[in-house]
Amino acid sequence: MENAGYERDARSTVVRLKERGQYDYATIHRLIDTTAVLHVSFPPSGDDPFPAILPMLGCTGVFDPDGKKPEPHAAAPGSFPEDEDEEDYSTGPRCIYLHGHAASRLFKAPLPDRLPVCVAATTMQGVVLALTPFHNSCNYASAVVHGYASVVTNEAERMYALTRITDNLVAHRWDNSRNPPTKAEMTTTGVLRIDIVSASAKVRVGGPGDDRHDMKNESVINNVWTGVVPTYTVYGEPIPSDYNRVGKVPSYMKHWIERENMRSKEEALSAVAKDKK
Amino acid sequence: MENAGYERDARSTVVRLKERGQYDYATIHRLIDTTAVLHVSFPPSGDDPFPAILPMLGCTGVFDPDGKKPEPHAAAPGSFPEDEDEEDYSTGPRCIYLHGHAASRLFKAPLPDRLPVCVAATTMQGVVLALTPFHNSCNYASAVVHGYASVVTNEAERMYALTRITDNLVAHRWDNSRNPPTKAEMTTTGVLRIDIVSASAKVRVGGPGDDRHDMKNESVINNVWTGVVPTYTVYGEPIPSDYNRVGKVPSYMKHWIERENMRSKEEALSAVAKDKK
Repeated sequence: MENAGYERDARSTVVRLKERGQYDYATIHRLIDTTAVLHVSFPPSGDDPFPAILPMLGCTGVFDPDGKKPEPHAAAPGSFPEDEDEEDYSTGPRCIYLHGHAASRLFKAPLPDRLPVCVAATTMQGVVLALTPFHNSCNYASAVVHGYASVVTNEAERMYALTRITDNLVAHRWDNSRNPPTKAEMTTTGVLRIDIVSASAKVRVGGPGDDRHDMKNESVINNVWTGVVPTYTVYGEPIPSDYNRVGKVPSYMKHWIERENMRSKEEALSAVAKDKK
Repeated sequence: MENAGYERDARSTVVRLKERGQYDYATIHRLIDTTAVLHVSFPPSGDDPFPAILPMLGCTGVFDPDGKKPEPHAAAPGSFPEDEDEEDYSTGPRCIYLHGHAASRLFKAPLPDRLPVCVAATTMQGVVLALTPFHNSCNYASAVVHGYASVVTNEAERMYALTRITDNLVAHRWDNSRNPPTKAEMTTTGVLRIDIVSASAKVRVGGPGDDRHDMKNESVINNVWTGVVPTYTVYGEPIPSDYNRVGKVPSYMKHWIERENMRSKEEALSAVAKDKK
């Protein structure tokens, strides 16, 4: 199952530099869940010729209406296994859940039953510098998903999505916050589900590549630094609010910050070491 | 002139939480130039119902066809002022330049004269944690631009754009690389210019906000940590390529890394200190 993934179609197949294309569930879902901000594109509406992009928070999920209360990233408040396994992203296709304020344009204007959208999750992992600017590049991983968006109305599915989005932002946060939500909170929050039609990822790794004539040119090769400047996201020291009364940063948060910082630095560094794609 | 900016229209005006909306040139241009990866959305084409998103490298610019050789971020190789002033982003409207391989779908399919696109530049600056998940938020700054894209054919403008995109990726890199470009390099590189029609930025700063009933609830306020986890991008230690022959990382690169790391951390920290928007 490990390499099972989305079927390629004309829309999703990476044509140029096709060795960078990846279609397996694990790569695509993991990218969506580890990218802080998703970019969601909507088709032009009415007379306006322009597509629109909204930066949104969200994550992947599979809601089981008959299942027991789903606890995707959750654990008992204040306790969690030290060597928590990463979620298995390879088990099958998923949806994407996004949320927003119910008063935002998106939820106010009634969506058509199936609104075609595109979601991009991009992680920049390094600046790749070659002898000539024309071979400069970036190490990056980007998932692009096409699918139909609809507003979720089933209360159990809405709860599932909101729990997951919260825990995807900060692991274990839901159970360590005030819950359950009030009726007003549920009413003012809109949840969007995107049913995926096609999906692919593009991943660039490795160092720079240069043309032979530049590599043989002594004045060029002896003077132009080539290599990769790794790039990663860092979560810094938490800064308490002016009404915070919890003296110490809780251990689930420390653990999450540590793990995320290690993960994104590791990914940037290991991308450099891989063979160029 | 400092607050001069793009005219608001129905498309660009921030309606909900309108205090987060900004329209001045300086905020919008600076965001576009300091965001590593831009997300560019294209309208559905042919029978395909879905809009498309491409992550691309690019930056703002104004090409003056009668001007002298433009040197936007450039300086003499190996030398630069220690206290380099930041570019003045407030002087007037600009275009956005993007580049790609001439063989990519975008440049191969002849663009219509004016292809309507949307460009988003988003910087995440912090995770904002409240007592209840429904008041969680993010500190972020996001510029969204609508405009018409066309392929640049004027050679002088193409050179201007490529120089600027290179120096926007790594300051002073163009003059410290092998140049001028070969004819083949120029032929295989496509440049897209986006003429901006409307533009706005949304900026969220400050700490969390919570409802009074939660702040009065002893078991909630004494147990849920609230505040901001600042988030920023880091450029790590440069890793030389296997054919690199320049022993020490050049000072223009060290300077760029230092300045960018300081800037993005500073922005994330100072966002927390500002009054909530």
